[in-house]
Amino acid sequence: MAKRKRRLRSSRSQPGEMPGTLVSRPEMGRSELHAILYSPDRVVEEHGVTLERVAQLRAMPGVLWLDVTGLGDAQLVEQVGRCFGLHTLALEDVLHVHQRAKVEDYGDHHFLVARVVNPGEVLDTEQLSLFFAERFVVTFQERPGDPFDAVRERIRNAKGRIRTVGADYLAYALLDAALDWYFPQIERIGSRLDAIEEELLERPTRKHMQELHTLRRELLVLRRAAWPLREAVQTLVRIGDPRVTRETQPYLGDALDHTVQVLELVEHERELATGLMELYLSAQGQRLNEVIKVLTIISTIFIPLTFIVGVYGMNFDPDAGPWSMPELKSPWGYVACLSVMAAIALGLFVWFRRRGWIGAEQDM
Amino acid sequence: MAKRKRRLRSSRSQPGEMPGTLVSRPEMGRSELHAILYSPDRVVEEHGVTLERVAQLRAMPGVLWLDVTGLGDAQLVEQVGRCFGLHTLALEDVLHVHQRAKVEDYGDHHFLVARVVNPGEVLDTEQLSLFFAERFVVTFQERPGDPFDAVRERIRNAKGRIRTVGADYLAYALLDAALDWYFPQIERIGSRLDAIEEELLERPTRKHMQELHTLRRELLVLRRAAWPLREAVQTLVRIGDPRVTRETQPYLGDALDHTVQVLELVEHERELATGLMELYLSAQGQRLNEVIKVLTIISTIFIPLTFIVGVYGMNFDPDAGPWSMPELKSPWGYVACLSVMAAIALGLFVWFRRRGWIGAEQDM
Amino acid sequence: MAKRKRRLRSSRSQPGEMPGTLVSRPEMGRSELHAILYSPDRVVEEHGVTLERVAQLRAMPGVLWLDVTGLGDAQLVEQVGRCFGLHTLALEDVLHVHQRAKVEDYGDHHFLVARVVNPGEVLDTEQLSLFFAERFVVTFQERPGDPFDAVRERIRNAKGRIRTVGADYLAYALLDAALDWYFPQIERIGSRLDAIEEELLERPTRKHMQELHTLRRELLVLRRAAWPLREAVQTLVRIGDPRVTRETQPYLGDALDHTVQVLELVEHERELATGLMELYLSAQGQRLNEVIKVLTIISTIFIPLTFIVGVYGMNFDPDAGPWSMPELKSPWGYVACLSVMAAIALGLFVWFRRRGWIGAEQDM
Amino acid sequence: MAKRKRRLRSSRSQPGEMPGTLVSRPEMGRSELHAILYSPDRVVEEHGVTLERVAQLRAMPGVLWLDVTGLGDAQLVEQVGRCFGLHTLALEDVLHVHQRAKVEDYGDHHFLVARVVNPGEVLDTEQLSLFFAERFVVTFQERPGDPFDAVRERIRNAKGRIRTVGADYLAYALLDAALDWYFPQIERIGSRLDAIEEELLERPTRKHMQELHTLRRELLVLRRAAWPLREAVQTLVRIGDPRVTRETQPYLGDALDHTVQVLELVEHERELATGLMELYLSAQGQRLNEVIKVLTIISTIFIPLTFIVGVYGMNFDPDAGPWSMPELKSPWGYVACLSVMAAIALGLFVWFRRRGWIGAEQDM
Amino acid sequence: MAKRKRRLRSSRSQPGEMPGTLVSRPEMGRSELHAILYSPDRVVEEHGVTLERVAQLRAMPGVLWLDVTGLGDAQLVEQVGRCFGLHTLALEDVLHVHQRAKVEDYGDHHFLVARVVNPGEVLDTEQLSLFFAERFVVTFQERPGDPFDAVRERIRNAKGRIRTVGADYLAYALLDAALDWYFPQIERIGSRLDAIEEELLERPTRKHMQELHTLRRELLVLRRAAWPLREAVQTLVRIGDPRVTRETQPYLGDALDHTVQVLELVEHERELATGLMELYLSAQGQRLNEVIKVLTIISTIFIPLTFIVGVYGMNFDPDAGPWSMPELKSPWGYVACLSVMAAIALGLFVWFRRRGWIGAEQDM
Repeated sequence: MAKRKRRLRSSRSQPGEMPGTLVSRPEMGRSELHAILYSPDRVVEEHGVTLERVAQLRAMPGVLWLDVTGLGDAQLVEQVGRCFGLHTLALEDVLHVHQRAKVEDYGDHHFLVARVVNPGEVLDTEQLSLFFAERFVVTFQERPGDPFDAVRERIRNAKGRIRTVGADYLAYALLDAALDWYFPQIERIGSRLDAIEEELLERPTRKHMQELHTLRRELLVLRRAAWPLREAVQTLVRIGDPRVTRETQPYLGDALDHTVQVLELVEHERELATGLMELYLSAQGQRLNEVIKVLTIISTIFIPLTFIVGVYGMNFDPDAGPWSMPELKSPWGYVACLSVMAAIALGLFVWFRRRGWIGAEQDM
Repeated sequence: MAKRKRRLRSSRSQPGEMPGTLVSRPEMGRSELHAILYSPDRVVEEHGVTLERVAQLRAMPGVLWLDVTGLGDAQLVEQVGRCFGLHTLALEDVLHVHQRAKVEDYGDHHFLVARVVNPGEVLDTEQLSLFFAERFVVTFQERPGDPFDAVRERIRNAKGRIRTVGADYLAYALLDAALDWYFPQIERIGSRLDAIEEELLERPTRKHMQELHTLRRELLVLRRAAWPLREAVQTLVRIGDPRVTRETQPYLGDALDHTVQVLELVEHERELATGLMELYLSAQGQRLNEVIKVLTIISTIFIPLTFIVGVYGMNFDPDAGPWSMPELKSPWGYVACLSVMAAIALGLFVWFRRRGWIGAEQDM
Repeated sequence: MAKRKRRLRSSRSQPGEMPGTLVSRPEMGRSELHAILYSPDRVVEEHGVTLERVAQLRAMPGVLWLDVTGLGDAQLVEQVGRCFGLHTLALEDVLHVHQRAKVEDYGDHHFLVARVVNPGEVLDTEQLSLFFAERFVVTFQERPGDPFDAVRERIRNAKGRIRTVGADYLAYALLDAALDWYFPQIERIGSRLDAIEEELLERPTRKHMQELHTLRRELLVLRRAAWPLREAVQTLVRIGDPRVTRETQPYLGDALDHTVQVLELVEHERELATGLMELYLSAQGQRLNEVIKVLTIISTIFIPLTFIVGVYGMNFDPDAGPWSMPELKSPWGYVACLSVMAAIALGLFVWFRRRGWIGAEQDM
Repeated sequence: MAKRKRRLRSSRSQPGEMPGTLVSRPEMGRSELHAILYSPDRVVEEHGVTLERVAQLRAMPGVLWLDVTGLGDAQLVEQVGRCFGLHTLALEDVLHVHQRAKVEDYGDHHFLVARVVNPGEVLDTEQLSLFFAERFVVTFQERPGDPFDAVRERIRNAKGRIRTVGADYLAYALLDAALDWYFPQIERIGSRLDAIEEELLERPTRKHMQELHTLRRELLVLRRAAWPLREAVQTLVRIGDPRVTRETQPYLGDALDHTVQVLELVEHERELATGLMELYLSAQGQRLNEVIKVLTIISTIFIPLTFIVGVYGMNFDPDAGPWSMPELKSPWGYVACLSVMAAIALGLFVWFRRRGWIGAEQDM
Repeated sequence: MAKRKRRLRSSRSQPGEMPGTLVSRPEMGRSELHAILYSPDRVVEEHGVTLERVAQLRAMPGVLWLDVTGLGDAQLVEQVGRCFGLHTLALEDVLHVHQRAKVEDYGDHHFLVARVVNPGEVLDTEQLSLFFAERFVVTFQERPGDPFDAVRERIRNAKGRIRTVGADYLAYALLDAALDWYFPQIERIGSRLDAIEEELLERPTRKHMQELHTLRRELLVLRRAAWPLREAVQTLVRIGDPRVTRETQPYLGDALDHTVQVLELVEHERELATGLMELYLSAQGQRLNEVIKVLTIISTIFIPLTFIVGVYGMNFDPDAGPWSMPELKSPWGYVACLSVMAAIALGLFVWFRRRGWIGAEQDM
């Protein structure tokens, strides 16, 4: 929690800061450059390259994918931007990592921001900033570790059409790979919800409520990430841009489909979670009723009996007169008294049973 | 529950998998081909046909409906796709069986995905993938057993216009048959809701809550299936495609109507279910009030009386002085004490009655 | 309830039934034909006419209104359809009486479906199917008894413009008459809500909850009937059809206004009902608090006192030693004990009063 | 409440009544005519004028504002309508005073219906029907007393531009004056909500709930009045009608702004009220917890103690044997017993304190 | 609270007041003028200038920013308006400081109203009215102290492009600076919500509920401020006005992005707050259950025991007969009685443990 807060603060510029200013924030991690240059017949992959090398690679034929991890060095980001001719406002968005997902057309290149989900068991999202033009893709990521290993593998092994088509297809492939990692998270949440449902019907505990709360929070995070992404991909699909080739168009449509599916699944699970919340609350109410019923039954049976034994515990002197507790002296008084009390207890028991308070376990 | 999870996982490709890849998943069942070739004057129906035979049938005059059940054999799906010239991305959607309903236009054929409801008492949905062009319809289904027996019957018996018109009408007829089976499920849920309503007003139990929860979940499933279907059919209606003949157009409009009706009925029942949930919760609260009222009445009447009998059970020595429990020695003390207690009990009884706590059964 | 279910089932065709098939359902009531033929200068009104007579009337000059009540005889419906050249799909909708309200343009005639409210104290809706062309209006109704008596009266007495204008105006007049009967139901529900509100503030009982539930259900029915009707009338208004004359256009706009007003009133009352539900629940909680407060006050005052009298009811032998219950032998012990208890009771009473638990009746 | 119902009934025509019929309803109040004729250089103001005089005034140069109060005399309304050439359907709407706000263009004049708020402390709305053409404005109001005194004053004193411009500006001025009186009501409700909030945080009582309910109802009334008004004014702004002069256009935009502001304020206050409702309910739950906690503490401390004193109140004969209540004869038995009980009470007190049940007043 | 009410009242004109009238309200603070005139090569900054000086500055080359703080002097506002040729209706909106955010095009200048957040720890909003034309920007603010210090600094130091471009960029820079200050408030609320979440899971108290309520109220205020602002900025972006230069356009798009982000963050936090409210209520219910369980356990164990000791406290005379409490005389009676009671207590304890009422702390 405290973490979320810290990050949000560091990612926004200070209020009043000049738009288009790039300020270094060392806490955002050391920046490193990774380059992959490929054409149908060869692949060059270099890690930790310098800017000069990037400029060289840029001049070579083929599609260049430059991946920048760690955003602590604003100067480097700016230099990369200058090298590829990227717009200053877009670069500012790269550094302020809590942007809404969007696609912007800067004339000679597109800029795409998306919140991606990292592989792993826990929900961990980061901002992906992606520029693409005819012959290059530049990506900026907050941290090393990303959902793109499968894409790299496909480039290396020339699997599928990736090496034969342009940078627009690479951009799509990266976006699609990022989208793919939403699903395991949704499935994890979905299967936790299923498990909670089963447990709730059997034995609801307080931990279920807290886990439900956590899952709903995660769904909120996923929705907040995916919602603007849909708009963004829609924009991309609609643009009908010359930079997006005809062959890539149906793939983009497919990516849009996946985004919509993410949103629908998230909404579906949110409704499931709400239903479970209601189930929990009704179970809580049911438990209250049950506890109170036990209390009421015990009290209702024993309080009158206790009153009766109290009566015969009074110290009125039986010798004071014929109407002063004559029962105490009767040889059958005690037995009669016990019998009356047994009869009362039995009567109340039957009455409770008839009202369904005893023996009807399924009652609410 | 566990089932749902397993299926969702198996249906999605692994994150990072190459788009357009078809991977066999034997757990999806053995694939089998069923072909029906018909023209106005004759019908050929063959089960378990081979791909070669399919190619022969495709060459013969008439409309060919190829039905593939079981999606375990990705290779077969691919070969069918090649045989009919179907798009690879669409074939991928065929295998990943948790697609949103949609209609896509691939130039020379349309692709329609829908979630259909199988005949039967329990709610069981599966994905129908349907390709149609001028002279063929290819359907892919997850499992044998489908809602299309009535359509087959009509083809065999040449009932109605089905044999005299093109493949577009067959596609519509299949879609409409699939839609038809939503209604029995909606009716089943509706009549359960009606029954629950009646029982809730008489004697609400915990099982009602759980059944309500289950019904709402089923409605959620139906809504999730029908919602994108509406969009899809709407797309089909609006396209005004040359492949959809003028005679089929009003029938498609009819199918759209049915989809909208499904959604409205589902929404209607969801609101009914929500109303019943509130009724249940208020009944739960009412029951709590009732139980607590019994406890309070009993306690309020007997606790003071028990106090009084306690007073006269104290062992102060009546001989110690004139103010030390002189009542104990009075010959009328006991009777007076009983009378006072009776008066108190009666007074409290009347007070409770006046406040409406006793005898006003309909009170909350 | 059971009734609703039965009807829904009988009205839908069997799943898989051929679209455009008309199947007789005797339980839908015997079909009867009523014809009114009018022109500015004369009116012919005949009940229980035969199809031949209808054909004759159709050939005569003037506007013909054929009203069919009871939909049990599918053949008759089909013959009427053939006589007036009505579309088969529309006729199917006539027989399946749980259609959504809609307007369809079949080239030479319009088809309008609406759910109308019958006159009467209880909410009773049925489907009205209405075809109109230049010179005729054909209506199909589920049962005899309808909201159109006032229209018939106006035709007979030549009141207003109805006899001087075309069939489009008659169609409008029927639609408007049907809409008019929504209002008494809305008013009935509204005045019940007002009454419940007053009673809730004075003395909420369980019956209010149940009546609220019933009223909300009725509002749901009205909304479900009126919602698609608005769309339908809107379509009609927008069409700008040659069959709808310029003079009738503003009247249709008026009908649209009324539909919107119905919907807004229904929504308004739904919000009122929701507010009352919340009022009820808070009153229920308030009642619980009140009951528990009585219990707590009584218990808190008497339980300590009962403990004290219990102490002096112990049988420790005062003769055993100077510290063994010396109070019992003191002549003022009893009085002192009573005084202490009175002081405790008074103290607690004052404490409760200060906390506002006693005497502040308006407290929650 | 009963009042609302009565009014609604009387304002709707009887179901089935002929559209465009004007029926007198004496209970709607005696109709009276007030005329103001003005031009830049003079003003004529006459109250209780006859129809003949109106016709004379209409023929004179300048802008004529005819104000009709009381709608009991349908004939008069009809004659006024004929005098100014107003459409019959519009006149019918004038008499049926529960119309939705709307603007209609009848070719040579506009018709505007709005629900206006009368000046005064309590929320009192009535229907304003306003016709305007190039040279006249005719208004119909249900009752004498209206929000237009300020406009009259401006006409009399030639303040501002009102006398120099056309009837369209007067129509705007009336609409704007009517809108102005929504704000005091919204402010009154808002300040009541603020007061309730403060009181709720200090000492919530049942009356707050009832007042909240009343305020929400009033907000519902305001919203129902203002919602269609926004649409209506929007229509007017968009029309770009020749009858609305270029100078008046920005003023209409201003009126639209005010309507939107009314709606946003109403929505804002509705959300505040909902928040307060939740605050109330949580306070109710908190109060319940508090009461129950007192009961539990008292019971938990005294019930075991009462049991102990009960043990030593048993009448087993200490002389029967060495194990038969030997404590009773011990000289320190009583003191020991009291000490044990004090220890138990103290222990329980400490335990409660540790759990935060005692002394942590802010607990829930 | 009371403050809010007072302000709203003073800011609206009196109902019926003439539109376009400017009335002085001294309580709105003394008006003061601050001018900054800048061109690429120089800056003139003057505080407390007179109107004459403003006219002089206006005549000089460069971009003039006139900032008016305090709106108490309507005459001054009017004179400023005349000096720059501002529209009267817009000036009226300047003085009535509870306008919705909007952008209006008055031909030769634009008028923008926005609610801005002042720097500082507590949420404090005021109205900013901003006019801009080709060569000037005039701003009106309610109070001294504003979010624009950073912009002034950039003008003074010629940082960035601000001095080299036109007034449209200055208008944008002011708007953007105002938007920037929304974020610290959102962050403050977000981090409070995070803290409350952590505390709620550990130890929920009544204060959390009240703070949640306050935070939700603040979110409501922020939303009400930002919602119309989005529309307004959207209008500005869409206009494609000649007065907004091509270079400023992408910056406006950026400002729109920020507004949308504000709204999404506010909505996100509102949902978080709602989730926390539910968590609080379920914790409240859980606490109730816990308290009642303690009561029930204690009562259920001790009430039967107390009954038993009461039985043996009865004063039936053991000498009256063989069936009259013979136990009292038995030497093992007392021990047997104690043993039976211990057995009962143990049995109940085990029963409670089995039902999970004891020892399962996580239970609800």
